[in-house]
Amino acid sequence: MQLSCPMPKFDFDTINLGHGSGGVLTHRLLNSGVFTVLQNDLLNEKHDGAVFELQGKLAFSTDSYVVSPIFFPGGNIGELAVNGTVNDLAMCGAMAKYLSLSFIIEEGFKMKDLWTILNSIKQSCDKANVQIITGDTKVVEKGKGDKIFINTSGIGVLHPNADIRLSKIKTGDAIIVSNNIANHGIAIMSKRQGLEFETDIKSDTTNLNFTIQKLIDAFGEKIHFLRDATRGGIASVLNEIAIDGNMGVDIQEKNIPLNEQVNGACEMLGLDPLYVANEGVFIAIIDATIQNEVMQLLTEDDNCKNAKVIGSITNEHIRQVILQSKIGGRRVVNMLPGEQLPRIC
Amino acid sequence: MQLSCPMPKFDFDTINLGHGSGGVLTHRLLNSGVFTVLQNDLLNEKHDGAVFELQGKLAFSTDSYVVSPIFFPGGNIGELAVNGTVNDLAMCGAMAKYLSLSFIIEEGFKMKDLWTILNSIKQSCDKANVQIITGDTKVVEKGKGDKIFINTSGIGVLHPNADIRLSKIKTGDAIIVSNNIANHGIAIMSKRQGLEFETDIKSDTTNLNFTIQKLIDAFGEKIHFLRDATRGGIASVLNEIAIDGNMGVDIQEKNIPLNEQVNGACEMLGLDPLYVANEGVFIAIIDATIQNEVMQLLTEDDNCKNAKVIGSITNEHIRQVILQSKIGGRRVVNMLPGEQLPRIC
Repeated sequence: MQLSCPMPKFDFDTINLGHGSGGVLTHRLLNSGVFTVLQNDLLNEKHDGAVFELQGKLAFSTDSYVVSPIFFPGGNIGELAVNGTVNDLAMCGAMAKYLSLSFIIEEGFKMKDLWTILNSIKQSCDKANVQIITGDTKVVEKGKGDKIFINTSGIGVLHPNADIRLSKIKTGDAIIVSNNIANHGIAIMSKRQGLEFETDIKSDTTNLNFTIQKLIDAFGEKIHFLRDATRGGIASVLNEIAIDGNMGVDIQEKNIPLNEQVNGACEMLGLDPLYVANEGVFIAIIDATIQNEVMQLLTEDDNCKNAKVIGSITNEHIRQVILQSKIGGRRVVNMLPGEQLPRIC
Repeated sequence: MQLSCPMPKFDFDTINLGHGSGGVLTHRLLNSGVFTVLQNDLLNEKHDGAVFELQGKLAFSTDSYVVSPIFFPGGNIGELAVNGTVNDLAMCGAMAKYLSLSFIIEEGFKMKDLWTILNSIKQSCDKANVQIITGDTKVVEKGKGDKIFINTSGIGVLHPNADIRLSKIKTGDAIIVSNNIANHGIAIMSKRQGLEFETDIKSDTTNLNFTIQKLIDAFGEKIHFLRDATRGGIASVLNEIAIDGNMGVDIQEKNIPLNEQVNGACEMLGLDPLYVANEGVFIAIIDATIQNEVMQLLTEDDNCKNAKVIGSITNEHIRQVILQSKIGGRRVVNMLPGEQLPRIC
């Protein structure tokens, strides 16, 4: 575990509109704060953008994080913002190299909370081997935001053997879920006002880039498709595959990896775990001939100890996900019509 | 002028939390809305990220836009978000190629306003010759945001002859302001509640990438430093140069390009135009020997008709910006201590 950077003595305890002005307060916040924690050669140039060289095919992704609460069991919004964008790039078959970091902070936000988040960002970057090289800070009036929103955008280098796209998927391909589902969503719900209950369920937020690199190193273009099952859970990803790919998806309920305690929490809250958000779980669609080797590699990886083959791609019931339940019945798993858990990431 | 894409018939007039869920409503908003307007080959892949190839040195920049009001004389938040990031890349000496686009929308935001903004984004992209290739949409509860915040991040290709950095600046270099200052800030103020007055002052928001490309094509590394004078106005940029570059800055008030009407509005509002935000004005620090040729090139460019040499770099009064006033006095122009105009960009 890395040491956190201790907070220097600032002459302000909270963020005010002046910190977004581009004037003295902005510079003080950046020079004594942000740059101290995140420093690296490219960021230290302090230009309007960062200049670098990268060889090969590149991937580019963006996400804004509005999770509420910003601190939750197993992580915080800063860690989520780094891992989320690193993982989006990984799902394209790319290793994230550089991130941008942009804050929209509500006036009155505590400096000590910003410091905690900054340190988490730095630690998550170090763990994923990425650097923040450019950034921005805006401040909005009290009541015009909600504590802090964070955007990260990322640039990664594509693995030379990666060829990950919907059109690669074919009938008979195996569908793998990489780990126990629904932990992130339930960890967030357990903290939300009015829904607190006693569990030790933690968010599964983590960087998946090294796991995906190992997968592609070993199996190359036989990894047909990857997507992390964040907002909307595994049900939404499987529906996207069925609908956008114009194919059928068969899954078996008994094979879906789900922790007992999380399952209990879902039942208590009336949530279907298939739709609950994850931040460290991905769906892999792979050539069925390599299924056993892929499962061996995954279950030896710390991020995928509970990986399971949950089903396969079919040329029947096109554009539909069909689940075979534990008691033998079959039902359609639709895309979520509305909102189940707002502001989950 | 390009035609706007007409708004299709949606079964919703306003954005609700479901549009940020990753479920059916998100897909309907994206497929019938966002993708229709912004479509291009890379975006159409609809992956978690976009994959592309670019040769040469690259630049990367990010900005979140929280301007209020979102529609103002001369532009709107969407146009600003494209031009702002295109210009940040231009100031590094890079031509923007690809942008990411991330929305944080407040529940209840009008679909027709989102459509107007989307069309502005598309038109600004076409004008600057950039493409949106990846994006994200989040929705927050009513009262937890303010209509819409937009993050754009951008990747550009560095001009092969660009060498723009603080350490290139030397004593005797000429300081150019590229156009009339303070228009954007005053246009915003003119719309703000309680401060409305009758003017035809418009925001100067525009893409500066082609102007900068011409400059570097013609003068290469003799263009020592560039920065657009957004938040905090030209005074903040000049102070950053003096402080971060450890040098002195001399400017003459009489040479600063400023429209009479804007000057009058500044006086009425008690604002110093040197600190008022611009969205289409940059500061160039150049080798003094090419001053006349640079001025000729700039004043022939539509974005820089009122460009002026406003001063020079000195090895006296290090880390200070000194202004010689019209009536002959000299005063220090400090960095803005607090906030003059919140949420100007």
